Amino acid sequence: MTLQDQIHDFGRRARAAARQLRLCTTEQKNAGIRAMADELLAAQDAILAANAQDLEKARANGLSGAMLERLKLDPKRLAAMADGVRQVADLPDPVGEIIREWTRPNGLRIEKRRVPIGVIGIIYESRPNVTSDAAVLCLKTGNATILRGGSESIASNVAIAAALSRGCARAGLPADAILLIPVTDRDAVRILCGMDQFLDCIVPRGGKGLIETVVEHARMPVIKHYDGICAMYVDKAADLGMTESLIINAKCQRPGVCNAIETVLVHSAVLEKFAATTGRALLKNGVHLRCDERSLEVLSAHYSVPSQSSERSTLSTEHCALLSPAKPDDYRTEFLDLILAIKTVDTLDAAIAHIEANGSHHSDCIITTDETAASHFLAEVDSATVYWNASTRFTDGGEFGFGAEIGISTDKLHARGPMGLEELTTYKYLLRGNGQVRG
Amino acid sequence: MTLQDQIHDFGRRARAAARQLRLCTTEQKNAGIRAMADELLAAQDAILAANAQDLEKARANGLSGAMLERLKLDPKRLAAMADGVRQVADLPDPVGEIIREWTRPNGLRIEKRRVPIGVIGIIYESRPNVTSDAAVLCLKTGNATILRGGSESIASNVAIAAALSRGCARAGLPADAILLIPVTDRDAVRILCGMDQFLDCIVPRGGKGLIETVVEHARMPVIKHYDGICAMYVDKAADLGMTESLIINAKCQRPGVCNAIETVLVHSAVLEKFAATTGRALLKNGVHLRCDERSLEVLSAHYSVPSQSSERSTLSTEHCALLSPAKPDDYRTEFLDLILAIKTVDTLDAAIAHIEANGSHHSDCIITTDETAASHFLAEVDSATVYWNASTRFTDGGEFGFGAEIGISTDKLHARGPMGLEELTTYKYLLRGNGQVRG
Repeated sequence: MTLQDQIHDFGRRARAAARQLRLCTTEQKNAGIRAMADELLAAQDAILAANAQDLEKARANGLSGAMLERLKLDPKRLAAMADGVRQVADLPDPVGEIIREWTRPNGLRIEKRRVPIGVIGIIYESRPNVTSDAAVLCLKTGNATILRGGSESIASNVAIAAALSRGCARAGLPADAILLIPVTDRDAVRILCGMDQFLDCIVPRGGKGLIETVVEHARMPVIKHYDGICAMYVDKAADLGMTESLIINAKCQRPGVCNAIETVLVHSAVLEKFAATTGRALLKNGVHLRCDERSLEVLSAHYSVPSQSSERSTLSTEHCALLSPAKPDDYRTEFLDLILAIKTVDTLDAAIAHIEANGSHHSDCIITTDETAASHFLAEVDSATVYWNASTRFTDGGEFGFGAEIGISTDKLHARGPMGLEELTTYKYLLRGNGQVRG
Repeated sequence: MTLQDQIHDFGRRARAAARQLRLCTTEQKNAGIRAMADELLAAQDAILAANAQDLEKARANGLSGAMLERLKLDPKRLAAMADGVRQVADLPDPVGEIIREWTRPNGLRIEKRRVPIGVIGIIYESRPNVTSDAAVLCLKTGNATILRGGSESIASNVAIAAALSRGCARAGLPADAILLIPVTDRDAVRILCGMDQFLDCIVPRGGKGLIETVVEHARMPVIKHYDGICAMYVDKAADLGMTESLIINAKCQRPGVCNAIETVLVHSAVLEKFAATTGRALLKNGVHLRCDERSLEVLSAHYSVPSQSSERSTLSTEHCALLSPAKPDDYRTEFLDLILAIKTVDTLDAAIAHIEANGSHHSDCIITTDETAASHFLAEVDSATVYWNASTRFTDGGEFGFGAEIGISTDKLHARGPMGLEELTTYKYLLRGNGQVRG
């Protein structure tokens, strides 16, 4: 069998499984989810042995410590994975919801009902826990999943998917509801992207290169999770105490995630005070500041020149070394690190225009006590989530109260921002008549 | 300027227009729509002169009478076009609707608000009225539009788009809200499909070839309007009087549209009666029937063999010539004509399986007095619209009560079935806090 035949066979099997799944009750699906969690724990030896194999190969290939750490499973992590699966059983099932119903003047009753999408392709990179996270959310919403993970975690993924699939079968659900492509060949991605007869949509989870490849080749809808180039704008009417805590949280609490900020825009009227408070706190937290001319001048005057002011002298020259001039690309870069681009603006409109031109329309925030300025910002900034006086770190399915998330969509169609269970569904119209014909 | 530079310039201008449009009030947009209708009428001489040019070229190129008829404008059709535009001003504006709002335990208020998508590309074929239909629906929902029509109607389209754009400008809206690419080069489509930095989505309206080209090349989401291979299933518990009127309506009232049926599945238990009633009516209406072996035999026995039964003899041999055996492809063909594929099935499940394997998941119907069978069909058939005892011809934005439609989506993501104004919008989340940070 060629690779194409093999993957098409997966498509056919997933399609058949989806047909069964969409008729399952919430109770049947939840029983399947609990059985999946049980089977993960029961397969501990096999999964950890497979993972040891992946780790050995990764070490031989010289993967970094951070990568090895992401790849590694142990009994505690596997238990957490099984717990994560089990928790999804307790979430409300969006499938079957009647979104709207109405009756037409001719007596035709129309019902818009929430239903599963069908077959969802998930293409991801290294972390093996994506295998169970993605599969369980798809199963909860009555979708079959075809998974294609990265080569680093292939043995772990195969063992995890086999356990999940056994759980489905044990609970009377189709074993083909969760299929993992055991081939990490790049061609597998291209074949998946071409089979729109079997796959209703693809969700790529990983770096920009992976997403680009999928966008390039996919014939079916793709839900993209691109960069978060997020900005905070410090308005002239900002509370500077709040500014410091919001910016430190949004930059430093977890710099490697998409809802961390990469840019701060400071109104020129508060630049001096900003430098003395938030600027200082950022440097103390070891954040590299890439500054436009004006902010560099003010920050440098505060920190790099020894002066009589005791406040200024509390920062060491080590901190001062964190200051450098910004290049234009710094305002369009997702650093995912303790690096922050700073730019001075003279108006609210200039801040909005900067975000429009440079941001990735993910999460952006205005810090101000001026309600009019806030309304203007909230209306004009065309991002998935727009904040007033809160950390952008809340762009997250869990923090939104969705219970779980498959990711943060940077697309505008179908799903925008945090994607919960509801975004893994579609709808269909049911029309009930008694012989109506069109005149 | 190269073609690419020119089209990219359109993208930039449309993006700037979209930024202004999303801040316009409903009143401002409605004033723009009324001015567009006025300008269409004011430009009557220019539009009809341009249309005459298109018609002359079309005749020289040997276009069919039906094509010429679709292309042709006259004062009455232009007035209808302006009326169609004006009516959109009276529809409710979905933009700004608060879809949901809630407060998190930390006090963060989350609002999910309906907003315009941004810039929408519309790629279409011959009929010039798509220019105004599509542009006005996009404008109503605060979106800028880049139109790319077919070569047959290029002069008409340019004149119509110019009038619409003048209307926008006269009402104080950006003139670039409606931009028509004046080049009908195939390369224009490929360039449009590649510029995801400017276009938020593309809606191809036209034949399968056009849609395939867009699907192949588009980097942004595509809302597809593929074939309608729709079926009606005549259950063993069908009311045969209703069956006749529904099938005649769904096949004959307007055979050239996507919500007309192409297949009838007949339960073997009612095949004889079906042949004597609906079969007869179809033949009288001049419908070519492509039949499986069993239905061909029964229908032939009824109509092609002279017999004593007076009922049988009322059909002429001319009608009998309409009967022929079905080839497998007939069950997967959108005839858009007075042709119908007929197949005998022995169970409801066989009917559902046939639709799953051969239909295009657009509109399918069960005719039955058995509520259990109907529920089974409504739940299992995975189509955009599923009917019980009504004509599939109701799959239409107007018939659904949406007021207007941009088309019938055969996609599952974002929009499924009739697409009204709501489907031309997206949402964003507004989060209002008082200093919340993530722990």
